[in-house]
Amino acid sequence: MSIILVADIGGTNGRFGLVNACSHTKGYNAEQQISLPSANYATLADMIRDYVKQAGVPMPKFACLAIAGPIQDGHVKVTNLNWEFSISRLRDELNMQALDVINDYSALAYAAPHLQAQDIATLYDTEANPYAPIGVMGPGTGFGAALLAPISTGWKIIPTEGGHCSFAPTTDTEIGILQEMRKQHEHVSIEHLLSGQGLVSIYKSLAALKGVDAEDLSPADVSERGIKHKEALCEEAVQTFCAILGGVAGDKALSWGAMGGIYLGGGIVPKIAHYLPQTDFIKRYLNKGVMRGYVEDIPVHMVTNDKAALIGTAAWLVDTTQALQS
Amino acid sequence: MSIILVADIGGTNGRFGLVNACSHTKGYNAEQQISLPSANYATLADMIRDYVKQAGVPMPKFACLAIAGPIQDGHVKVTNLNWEFSISRLRDELNMQALDVINDYSALAYAAPHLQAQDIATLYDTEANPYAPIGVMGPGTGFGAALLAPISTGWKIIPTEGGHCSFAPTTDTEIGILQEMRKQHEHVSIEHLLSGQGLVSIYKSLAALKGVDAEDLSPADVSERGIKHKEALCEEAVQTFCAILGGVAGDKALSWGAMGGIYLGGGIVPKIAHYLPQTDFIKRYLNKGVMRGYVEDIPVHMVTNDKAALIGTAAWLVDTTQALQS
Repeated sequence: MSIILVADIGGTNGRFGLVNACSHTKGYNAEQQISLPSANYATLADMIRDYVKQAGVPMPKFACLAIAGPIQDGHVKVTNLNWEFSISRLRDELNMQALDVINDYSALAYAAPHLQAQDIATLYDTEANPYAPIGVMGPGTGFGAALLAPISTGWKIIPTEGGHCSFAPTTDTEIGILQEMRKQHEHVSIEHLLSGQGLVSIYKSLAALKGVDAEDLSPADVSERGIKHKEALCEEAVQTFCAILGGVAGDKALSWGAMGGIYLGGGIVPKIAHYLPQTDFIKRYLNKGVMRGYVEDIPVHMVTNDKAALIGTAAWLVDTTQALQS
Repeated sequence: MSIILVADIGGTNGRFGLVNACSHTKGYNAEQQISLPSANYATLADMIRDYVKQAGVPMPKFACLAIAGPIQDGHVKVTNLNWEFSISRLRDELNMQALDVINDYSALAYAAPHLQAQDIATLYDTEANPYAPIGVMGPGTGFGAALLAPISTGWKIIPTEGGHCSFAPTTDTEIGILQEMRKQHEHVSIEHLLSGQGLVSIYKSLAALKGVDAEDLSPADVSERGIKHKEALCEEAVQTFCAILGGVAGDKALSWGAMGGIYLGGGIVPKIAHYLPQTDFIKRYLNKGVMRGYVEDIPVHMVTNDKAALIGTAAWLVDTTQALQS
């Protein structure tokens, strides 16, 4: 029995767990989950040692960490923290047999084929093609986007920068918002609209278009006032955000040939999950002209299990580590 | 020595050739190339038999055909022809050991890693990452788009419908064109602008925006008058077309994480190849805000060898047929 230490390390918190690598035929499950405040630790190694101590287990021989930040040539930088480290040195320092670090969106992507019914909520229901690519995307601090291609041995993750594509407006209001945002940015990307700050930008652009004053609101303010019908302009901003999200989900499904399904992740979707069905999300998802029939065959799920990245890191390590394959 | 019959079957012509499967370490080469008029034959089997007769060789045991048209569950329909057939029945009818049919854009995609310096012209030069995905795209009758993901055994083709994504305008003129085209289409896709008919639509939209009369021109008329500086409005249409093509190439590079390079194919690019450097193509390719550095690392090539699809079909068959692997 091989135990994998899994973690999802963010700038604020690190979430840890332990996965039994041999139990994955029944679906991965991360046990002994503990969330630790990243700022309390000088290094990631210290944080991992503290988790193992709190969990009361010996240091596992295997680990896989999801990190919000760039990973290049085995070197990792954690966004919003001072942490920089070499993957192989961290492995040696912790005396592990295998340790890997993957991007947090790649982890979510890798989790997709392993998610169970209770881990997702289906926004648009149809039968997926199990032999086709799967797309994972969603707004958070930025707009993440990754693709999973089916190969003979499992799945191949393709990390992308799809959140930085040019924004494609499809209504008069959205063209107006684009015009407003072009005053700030030479290139207006999807992420400029579909992110926490993007929601605020939509709100401010709508105010400018109507010639009314915008308040100085946080993303949470706009979303809360909008969803609870407290303020018309905030509600229009949230509605516009959800409609654009639907259009982008359809565009990514087309761009990726993602007939295996689209999974929405990221920090914002869980917060607007119950509101999405009251918006133009699905109408805009399907509004792809002659390709309507194509997207009609592609289901859209929301990832509601916020431990999904832990499942993805475990699945990734098992699929890429010889010693974990039975 | 195994000989593969390769062909690129279009609505007007079928181009045939013979590839020696064992010579592929030196790069695939299609010999005895002959182009035959599709309309002269009642069935594809008849056309293949006639090619083999003209080439003066025995019927090969292996074949791979690129087809402009959809392939579903082993059933093929050739666009603009009455031909419909089952792949396995065609194989049996011709008494072959292996016969496969792939989409013409997939064939071009599969050719990409096998193209030699003389098969391409580089529009934007930088060192590609040889372990990263490759993107293939381009305008023709429609706008084709496919992705190649590197896997341990070679490459995995991911066919996409990326030409049907919503159009993202990035200048005042392009926003005006989008507004004009929204009068005709509820959903304005990339293909509505980047295709033969798309070039005409750009020309007509520009005329409408300027309040001048548009002539009834074919795509070839607009492109010829534009490239030869014969008519300002046609030239503006071609310039706009090339600028949008650059922007879309950048968006696809981002969406696909295609750090292995972008290859432009399709029927139109070879005709405007010498003109592209005089346009905003590269400026718009790189104009991706914070992601400029990312696309700066991705080269853009034009496929100038119009037999590329034949190379791709041969490479596909060798990679997927046990009997052809040495």
